[in-house]
Amino acid sequence: MVKVGDNIPNIDLVEGKPDAKVNLCKELGSGLIIGVPAAFSPACSDTHIPGYIAHSKLKSAGKVFVVSVNDAFVMNAWAKSLDENSSSGIRFLGDPSGAFTRALDVEFEAAPLLGTNRSKRYAIVVENGKVKSVDIEPDNIGVNVSAADKILG
Amino acid sequence: MVKVGDNIPNIDLVEGKPDAKVNLCKELGSGLIIGVPAAFSPACSDTHIPGYIAHSKLKSAGKVFVVSVNDAFVMNAWAKSLDENSSSGIRFLGDPSGAFTRALDVEFEAAPLLGTNRSKRYAIVVENGKVKSVDIEPDNIGVNVSAADKILG
Repeated sequence: MVKVGDNIPNIDLVEGKPDAKVNLCKELGSGLIIGVPAAFSPACSDTHIPGYIAHSKLKSAGKVFVVSVNDAFVMNAWAKSLDENSSSGIRFLGDPSGAFTRALDVEFEAAPLLGTNRSKRYAIVVENGKVKSVDIEPDNIGVNVSAADKILG
Repeated sequence: MVKVGDNIPNIDLVEGKPDAKVNLCKELGSGLIIGVPAAFSPACSDTHIPGYIAHSKLKSAGKVFVVSVNDAFVMNAWAKSLDENSSSGIRFLGDPSGAFTRALDVEFEAAPLLGTNRSKRYAIVVENGKVKSVDIEPDNIGVNVSAADKILG
């Protein structure tokens, strides 16, 4: 799995619509990548991401991205449901094929329930384009080591 | 592709949450199945499904189901965004693996854009468990032959 010192995978994600690409390897100098298993799932929607949106230290975390194995339509709608005016500054990126997630080696088997395999829940702090810290939920989907309070302090 | 006289595939779909199964082969005596390419996509969300929700003859169509190759979390959220209190009576079912869609032979290649292949847009009128009429969009995603005005008259 992804570890301290790694580069961010040079794999396109999508934002807002299916053909709008974002490459975190090129775009994210320093900041935070939050991986989640499923847009609109209760743990992701009620606890994990709202915890970041509400956190007093969010603005000092640099660029913050949420990444999930969902398509751009779904990620866009999910973003609006959590943060209608994008006032948090968090950006919501889709990894529809799961290629970015597999490159980080954080995929887990979810296809029997959700149709496709998904991303373990994680938080990766990035500094100067490299992984500075990484916290991956050991049970894939819980909200503990990757929670806002643990990451943003 | 699915044709008049066919049975409805005996394949579970999901409703509301990933483990809540619905089998239209068993449940749908007479009514309507509306297939769509993608939850939260503009054509599906702004035109196709709202056209059914607003149609004066919807209530006489029997049981009405929307089916898409999306997971249950996404379909549930999409349903609430279109019809917050389920007042239309339309039920939104996910076909996360695409198995139901492939059994109807209405899948088209969408994986490069959306991560998974999806369902052509269609409307199937079902009577006594068999396909009474079927209208499939020839370009996969347009809203013409399967529009509410064409199907509900």
